[in-house]
This record gives sequence, structure tokens and C-alpha cells, in this order.
Amino acid sequence: MTANRHDDRYQARGVSASKSEVHSAIKDVDQGLYPGAFCKIIPDVLTNDDDHCLLMHADGAGTKSSLAYLAWMEGMGEEVWAGIAQDSLIMNVDDCACVGAMGPYLVSNTIGRNAKRIPGNVIAGIINGYQAACDTLADEGISCIMTGGETADVGDVVRTIIADSTITARMRRDDVIDAARMNAGDVIVSFSSTGQARWENTPNAGMGSNGLTSARHEGLGADYRERYPETYAPEVDKDLIYCGQHALTDPLPGDDNFTVGSAILSPTRTYAPLINDLLQAIPRTDIHGLIHCSGGGQTKILNFGSGNHYIKDNLLPVPPLFKLLKNSTGQEWAEMYSVYNMGARLEAILPAKHAETCISIAKACGIDAVISGRVEAATSNDNTLTITAEGGTHTYN
Amino acid sequence: MTANRHDDRYQARGVSASKSEVHSAIKDVDQGLYPGAFCKIIPDVLTNDDDHCLLMHADGAGTKSSLAYLAWMEGMGEEVWAGIAQDSLIMNVDDCACVGAMGPYLVSNTIGRNAKRIPGNVIAGIINGYQAACDTLADEGISCIMTGGETADVGDVVRTIIADSTITARMRRDDVIDAARMNAGDVIVSFSSTGQARWENTPNAGMGSNGLTSARHEGLGADYRERYPETYAPEVDKDLIYCGQHALTDPLPGDDNFTVGSAILSPTRTYAPLINDLLQAIPRTDIHGLIHCSGGGQTKILNFGSGNHYIKDNLLPVPPLFKLLKNSTGQEWAEMYSVYNMGARLEAILPAKHAETCISIAKACGIDAVISGRVEAATSNDNTLTITAEGGTHTYN
Repeated sequence: MTANRHDDRYQARGVSASKSEVHSAIKDVDQGLYPGAFCKIIPDVLTNDDDHCLLMHADGAGTKSSLAYLAWMEGMGEEVWAGIAQDSLIMNVDDCACVGAMGPYLVSNTIGRNAKRIPGNVIAGIINGYQAACDTLADEGISCIMTGGETADVGDVVRTIIADSTITARMRRDDVIDAARMNAGDVIVSFSSTGQARWENTPNAGMGSNGLTSARHEGLGADYRERYPETYAPEVDKDLIYCGQHALTDPLPGDDNFTVGSAILSPTRTYAPLINDLLQAIPRTDIHGLIHCSGGGQTKILNFGSGNHYIKDNLLPVPPLFKLLKNSTGQEWAEMYSVYNMGARLEAILPAKHAETCISIAKACGIDAVISGRVEAATSNDNTLTITAEGGTHTYN
Repeated sequence: MTANRHDDRYQARGVSASKSEVHSAIKDVDQGLYPGAFCKIIPDVLTNDDDHCLLMHADGAGTKSSLAYLAWMEGMGEEVWAGIAQDSLIMNVDDCACVGAMGPYLVSNTIGRNAKRIPGNVIAGIINGYQAACDTLADEGISCIMTGGETADVGDVVRTIIADSTITARMRRDDVIDAARMNAGDVIVSFSSTGQARWENTPNAGMGSNGLTSARHEGLGADYRERYPETYAPEVDKDLIYCGQHALTDPLPGDDNFTVGSAILSPTRTYAPLINDLLQAIPRTDIHGLIHCSGGGQTKILNFGSGNHYIKDNLLPVPPLFKLLKNSTGQEWAEMYSVYNMGARLEAILPAKHAETCISIAKACGIDAVISGRVEAATSNDNTLTITAEGGTHTYN
């Protein structure tokens, strides 16, 4: 990977994109029935049925809630909180959909808040937001059921608010999409994170719920540093806090639909209805992998398969939001692709004969798609990734 | 309830014991199959079996993690982090056991940390702590399975570390213990939160994972206020921060087993093995209610049943830890009973004929138990609670 100053900046803010330290902490934990699958899958211990298996999966909105708080304080309206609920839920749902688990999903949520900053109507906004996101999925035939949750007043631990959720699902074992199947000869189809999908009420700028610490501080300007000290870690060098050039209300260059604030806050798109449609049209055994380009962005695929050289040389154009983040403080391109989805938060890895089906199904969902690359054999058991796109060619191991 | 200055202090710290604001935010949420049960219970949508039902339940260690951080910084050793995992897990397990769900429990966890303060070995300590708590339950015949989790670097949101968990369980509907069944004529059996249970390696001072914000600030001294600003909300009046009289290392008056720090940090005792034994010995339909005295302490029972007057006039002695918290800054007794478990974190409500069975089973578990009170008819559909104990008689509605 190209050496660059931005790795250091990321680390200096107390965020590790690669999570190597965390992976080391959990290295001895059982990997489940399908160690190569996108999510951990365990035997169906609830019914002891050997034909079925279970997933229980946790994720959250991360530091996007800190940005929601900032935007809410600056008058962007309470709908930002529904977006945070959607972020938290969809990070989970889309992970589970990537192994072919299409629900019913049971959802539980935890909210930790500083009651000195966050009033009850914000809690209501988040909880109603979870329900709204479930309703959207239901409209697309995907059952997602809120089972409850826990809201705790923990101002001694949380500066503003944190929102996490956990989902449980059950599926047939022979329905599991095991990304370990990805291999040489497959193509990679990338699905746009921008535009307006069939189930979305407004256009989406492409942000998910990853890279938010970086996006916030690299994109937004220093005025917020003095006015909202509750939105960042005081231990971080002040030169790295809100060191970008923009106000939340600045128009997003290149896309009239957004301000800088509304673009970064775009609620995480769910690809679950698209995946559902793909599973109807293509034999599951032919879908070798579905990768949710979350933490690690376009490099996420490196964690799956073995002995593969992933080559992406025809990615979708970089959306305006990511160009702005690139330009605001001059992050390196290599880092950009390893932090952000850069315009495609889902990719399917499968035989070339199914690529056009993927693209036409995506089109019916209102989502652009493209054959972005292919899988070749690597020269060792390790995976390699080469991205050739705007900004040049970058190799990752 | 007796008016007192302490309510105000609690609120001033941004913590609401009654959570009225949160309950208002979720008042329209579906209450599930058994609205009067201790936990929300939903239909078994995973298998569509009408004889079964599901629970998905979330909770966490709350601000106890802030105290663990303080103690760890002061040299108490890494085992404090295993305790935090146990706190988070047992708050869930014991809630679910109170409706008679005895596992298998699927467990998922979320950790949010400020990487500038919390290194990877702490994460490992927490994750290994979850597994250790599961192993303890397994030794008692209760299956508790770690399914994974999410650790996020969210220093912009979290001052030190937050640890939550979620569990999923399935059970037969006719096995559900529905606390709505509690009624006049029942007795209340209280089970000690102190001493050393059969499955515990060391004595327990009785603290659960509730009331920790208050216990920390009312019990501990001001020296920590200057040295550890990362352990409290800066928005709170400084006079309310670490305004007690003690250092973590002070001996706990009245119990040589503990320092003040180790007492407050005592990992939350699980009563699940005791409940499991009770369910073997007493017909489930005769167990009218099991109450986990978590948030709300000895007043938790007020949320369950209807038209009942709960009378507790023979509680176990107040343990040394709670006496210390009472004395350190002069909290009112009425408040003490509504924040802390005061020595008994579980109570069973059932016909008098089963009381001695409960007490002898508890004794076999190494847990003191007593008939602490009874249920009479209230004068309205609302519940009333009268506690007559050390500190006088207190009435709660």
C-alpha cells in the first residue's frame, strides 16, 4: 500500500481502519460454521435443527451520531436522528444479507446518552427511526421486527449519544453464501451507493457509517472545534480536529441535492432489497460472494477468499462527496479507497455469465451497477488487491 | 415518596432512576405477547411455532465501566475488565431468567472505546470476561454462547469505554413466568446480593450495575475529580463530582473482604443458577413473579402486577457497602431503596407454601434468603409499595 501521511492522521485520531488490535484481541474466538463467510454463522442451538443455522450480529452508527448532534445543534432538524437509527440498523442488515440471510430479522437496540445534551425527543426520534427503517424493508418484502432495547443515561461515559443495534436471523445452511467460494475467473460487480433507490425518498450521497471520524474532521472547518468541544475526543491533537474547509451548510460541489452536512449525513443505504432480488434470479451456489464495503471501504474484499488477486479497474465514478473529502485536506487516493466506499458499498463476485443479470436487476432498483473488475489467481495464498481508478493504481495486501 | 434533596442530585448528574422520559419516548412501542412479564416476549417468528416464543434483550455495564477505568488507572489490575463483561452479560441473563427463559442464550456484544485511553489488552480482557461468565453459567448447566460482537473506535463519542450486550433466547410459551400473576396473598422472598454463591470465586459486596453514577460520585472523594476528568460529564456541577469521602483503596467498614473500590466494582452476581433450581422444585404456574431489582432497586416491583400493595417489612440487613454509600454524603434512606438493591437483587413472589423451598434452595446455592414481605390488595388499580426497614418506613407509588 502506498505509504502516506494519512494513515498517521487516522491513527492520531484514535481510529484504526484495519482494526488489527481488535482482531488480535479476538483471535482465539471461535469462527463459527463458515469461517470464510462475510458474517459469523453458528449452529441453530435454539431448535437444534441441523439444516438451519443462526446469525447474531451487532453494529452501530459509530461517530456518525456525533455529526448528527452537530448538525442538529446547527438547526438541521430532528430527522437527522432517524438517519442515525437507519445507519445503525442497515450496517447490520446489509452484513447479514451478504451471507444470504434475508430475515425475519429480530432487532434490539442500545442507546447511551448524555442526558445533559440529549433530550427525550431525540431518543424518540431514534427509536421511531428504527421502526421507519423496518417499515421500509417490510414494504420490500423483508421482515424486520423491533424487539425492544435499552436506553441508558451514561453521561460519565458518553459525550453526546451512541446508538448500536443487534440483529438475530435464522436461515437454511444450504442457503448460506460463503465468500470463501470467491475464486479466479469470477467477475466483480459493484453497486452504486449514490442516486435514489426504489425504496428511498430522497437521493443518497453515498456515505455509509464508516470513515465518519475522518470525513467529519477532514471535511468540516475549525469553527466547530471551538463551539462544539463535546463532539470530539479532547486527547486528539487540535490540528486534527475539524481541520477541513467546509461548513455544514456549504453546497456540495457537483451535486445540487446536498449540502456538505446533508451529504455526509446521508443515511446508510440498504442493499437488502437488491440482494433479495438477486437471490431470486441467480442460483445461490453461483453467487460466490457478496461484500459489504463497510470498514475498509473498497479494500474490504481482501479479508475474504484466499489466494486471490482482486483487480478493480472499472469502478463507478467517484461521487462528489468523496471528491470533496479528497480535496478538503488533501488525503491520499490510496487512503481514500481504504476508508470510504468511494461510490459502491456492495459488490457481488460471481461468474461472468450472471453479471448482466445483476446490472439489470440493480437498474430496476434504481441503482447503477457495473462490472468493476475480476478475480485472478494470486502468486501466494495471501490475497492481493489492485485498484486502478481515479487517482492512479494502488496495490493492497 | 419522601421528598428529598437526593432526587435533585441524581437529576443534576443527568441520570433518571425512573426513566420517565425514556418510557414516554417508547410508549407507543408494541409490548409483546405478555405485557405484564418482566421482559418483552415476542412470537417465535424464526420458526413460526405457536407453542414457542422469543426474547431479545439488551443491557450493559452502564457507568460501571467508568469506575473500572478509574480503578484500572489506579492499579487495581486488569481483572476489573472481566467484571465489566460479567456486569453487562448478567444484567441481561438475569432479566431473561426472571421470565423463566433458561437458555440457550445467544450473546452478542458491542464495545465502544476511546482508543486514546483504552488499549487492545483491555478489549481482550472484556471479551475474555464474557467467555468466562458464559463458562461459569455452563458449569451450572446453563448454556450461554458468544456469537461475536463489534468493537468500535469512537473516541469522539465515548470518553473511555462502554460495554453493552444483547441476548436472544427461545422458550415454550407455557413456561413463561408472567409477573402479571402477582397478587394479594402472595409472599415476597428476597435473595441476598452479598456473600459468596456456589458459582462465585470470591465474596460479593452486593453491587449490581445500577446506581453506579450515584455510588461513584457519592462514595468516592474529590481527588479523582482533578486527576480523571475523562471519567465524568463536564456539564455536571463540579460539587456533584466525586463528592464523597473515600479513596478506592480505603477498607470497607464492616467487611474485611473489600476495599471501597473492590466493593463497588463487585461483578454483578448472576441468580440464574438459583432460578434454574427453583424452576425444578416449584411448579412454574405457582411462581407468580421473579423480580430482578435492577434500575429502581427495591422499588422495581412497582412496575409489575396491578392493584397490588407490596409490603416489605423484613428485608435482609443493609450490607456494609450500602451503609457506606448512605453515610458518605448523607443520602436519604427513601432514595437509597429506590436506587440500590440494598442487599437483595432478586425476589420471588409466590404462595407462602413455597417460601421455605425457596429459602432452602437458596441456602444450597450459598445465598441467604428470607420472607421479606407480602402482597396485599391496594385501594386502587395502581400499585403501592411500603418498605419498613433500616431508616424507617417509606411509601412509593
